[in-house]
Amino acid sequence: MNLGILTIGNELLSGRTADSNSSFIAKELAPLGWRVTKIMSVGDEENAIKGALDHLFLSSQGVIATGGLGPTADDLTTACIAQAFGRKLILHEPALRDIQDRFARLNLPWTENNTKQAFFPEGATPLPNPAGTAWGFYLPVKDQFVIVIPGVPREVQRILPEKVLPLLKSLFPGEAPAAETVTIKLFGLPEARVDAALGDVDFAGMDVQVGFYPNFPENHLVLTAHQEEAAARKNSLVLAQAEVEKRLGSHIFAYNEDTLEGLVGRYLTEKQLKLALAESCTGGLIAHRLTNQPGSSLYFDRSLVVYSNQAKTQLLGIPEEVIGAYGAVSRETVILMAEGVLKESGADLGLAVTGIAGPAGGTESKPVGTVFVALADGNQTISRQFRFPWDRLRNKTLFSQVALLMLLKYLRGENTP
Amino acid sequence: MNLGILTIGNELLSGRTADSNSSFIAKELAPLGWRVTKIMSVGDEENAIKGALDHLFLSSQGVIATGGLGPTADDLTTACIAQAFGRKLILHEPALRDIQDRFARLNLPWTENNTKQAFFPEGATPLPNPAGTAWGFYLPVKDQFVIVIPGVPREVQRILPEKVLPLLKSLFPGEAPAAETVTIKLFGLPEARVDAALGDVDFAGMDVQVGFYPNFPENHLVLTAHQEEAAARKNSLVLAQAEVEKRLGSHIFAYNEDTLEGLVGRYLTEKQLKLALAESCTGGLIAHRLTNQPGSSLYFDRSLVVYSNQAKTQLLGIPEEVIGAYGAVSRETVILMAEGVLKESGADLGLAVTGIAGPAGGTESKPVGTVFVALADGNQTISRQFRFPWDRLRNKTLFSQVALLMLLKYLRGENTP
Repeated sequence: MNLGILTIGNELLSGRTADSNSSFIAKELAPLGWRVTKIMSVGDEENAIKGALDHLFLSSQGVIATGGLGPTADDLTTACIAQAFGRKLILHEPALRDIQDRFARLNLPWTENNTKQAFFPEGATPLPNPAGTAWGFYLPVKDQFVIVIPGVPREVQRILPEKVLPLLKSLFPGEAPAAETVTIKLFGLPEARVDAALGDVDFAGMDVQVGFYPNFPENHLVLTAHQEEAAARKNSLVLAQAEVEKRLGSHIFAYNEDTLEGLVGRYLTEKQLKLALAESCTGGLIAHRLTNQPGSSLYFDRSLVVYSNQAKTQLLGIPEEVIGAYGAVSRETVILMAEGVLKESGADLGLAVTGIAGPAGGTESKPVGTVFVALADGNQTISRQFRFPWDRLRNKTLFSQVALLMLLKYLRGENTP
Repeated sequence: MNLGILTIGNELLSGRTADSNSSFIAKELAPLGWRVTKIMSVGDEENAIKGALDHLFLSSQGVIATGGLGPTADDLTTACIAQAFGRKLILHEPALRDIQDRFARLNLPWTENNTKQAFFPEGATPLPNPAGTAWGFYLPVKDQFVIVIPGVPREVQRILPEKVLPLLKSLFPGEAPAAETVTIKLFGLPEARVDAALGDVDFAGMDVQVGFYPNFPENHLVLTAHQEEAAARKNSLVLAQAEVEKRLGSHIFAYNEDTLEGLVGRYLTEKQLKLALAESCTGGLIAHRLTNQPGSSLYFDRSLVVYSNQAKTQLLGIPEEVIGAYGAVSRETVILMAEGVLKESGADLGLAVTGIAGPAGGTESKPVGTVFVALADGNQTISRQFRFPWDRLRNKTLFSQVALLMLLKYLRGENTP
């Protein structure tokens, strides 16, 4: 089944609000195999709404529309749709009672304009809103249909999975072809090189669709199989994934929902290891990424963000002479940083980064974008040097990425000095 | 002039990527007086692109399209548009040289598929991309036009203001009324309360347009004046801004391009003060935000990201008994954190944060979202408690926001214990 999505609201056209409902709805529909053919946004205006529905019906069996269901004068969606399809508006008593009850429960004063939200086009099936007063509705129109739900993202995130998807599954049981995907996450190759490396793979012959999704600093490759049989889909994806791994294996660090910081956290938890960081040029970003994971207090002990040289000396015991002789941005210093934070913290692993994020601070031998990374475990200390060509924010992101990747490889037993 | 926006990419229809370009473009066009009538998203597919352009041309003089300009096989936009309007594709030498130069500068190996990005439909004006290899183009089609730019948001944010808007202004000089804007940045009030507080202001009478832009965790209010005369625009904006300040002054922290971390950095530099942080629940985010500013090494000394209680005790000298008696998340602890990092670092100011970002760790008296912030200068220590109702990432963002805001107010002489 092909579906269109229509989001309604003047705030979408003025740029005041970014439309987050479309991507949420599309993402919920994708695994059901229902294909979104087009997404449109129009203002609260009758001709625009009618024109958009007509256009979407050209390529879709149904349209899911959001927004314009509130009690105020500029909320026109229900009336427009009734008008567009020649339906009267009819009061739905259960909806009215539900809305009145909700006002009473929340101790809100009832105003008469709220009654408007209990009217639906003739022939519509009202859809209760689990999270607000604006009910949605399903309206069949000849052999097509429109489903209208409220526009508040928090309400969409309840009414769609709880009311709309079950309704669609019951109305169109045979219509949801299965689809299966594998996401392969790569780092360290530009999109064009990923593409070139896969140029000789006959994905079409395997009945697999390929999408590239740049996601700085990563590239995500999504393989999708649409065959009827679950076994056929699985088989196609296994073959296609193997071809990708054969060509790009060393650049793959994660699959599907896994993230770099999530994987690092999972390995540290499994191995019951505590991590301490010494960050200079990343300025706390590695710690921020790690602590975005719920439960990170299990394995993350501390980060010493030693921006000044004094902090490096004082907190990590790095001799001033080392910094003087080799510089704060040097392999010698980063090794002492990793070993210093390991020793001071009593953690199991010490990870350290020092570099030049830019725009200033570069020299001929150590230009902007230069970074040194070291990982110490008490027995050995691994260190690496990288250079990136970007601006301050992207350099910081890349510095944190290579440091976390060094740690991930170590935890997987792939990294040696 | 009416304009349509078309965003192109399978990732938009699959829900993998939310379309942030449309709202950015709409927001940039709004102050110029050009009206966006419709926004559409379609996949990388010829019929869909052509159908969407036809539909948008019904209500718009021109269409701004994004996406599908990459070097890979699934990037079809340029070819589709050439085909749709019966144009040949022609190699544009300056674009090819620019792309090759960019590869050389970044030390990236050249692959032949990149040449594709230097081909444009006959009759098109290529638009250099200041931030990437995918140039855009302007293509007149009878008395209408389409402008195509890349889909990477970072690139859109450069090419639109630097190339597209100047081109449109020069092509349609009568169409773009002069405009001047003031952006007022607010924190601590939901959009509906900002709206209600300004309900009695006669902006229309002052000839000023108002836009609300939620920008989590901030709300940005953009005032735009369109009068012919520069003096009249200035005058209107001064009046309107004064009305906003009268009603919402205490929630305003910045104007126009200023950011919270940028202002903090400017004051610290001016006053020649050094800052040290002790971060628990923010996990390095405050340090990350501060060090995103070029030149932050002038005033940022260190952050001790003390995630474990042991780190708090060891690095900040907080007695275990205090943590035992009051908890790691308490006013008593945060005050000792701020004073501890101030003393240990020898900086001029110590800023500390401890709280519960969630999802776990909340208690009845200290639920998820509770945060304590303290600022010590050696003479006095200010502390505050806040509670926020969000998820882990948004709570971390808010915790960093209130801490930086406390520091900014102190630096402005507004914060007292």
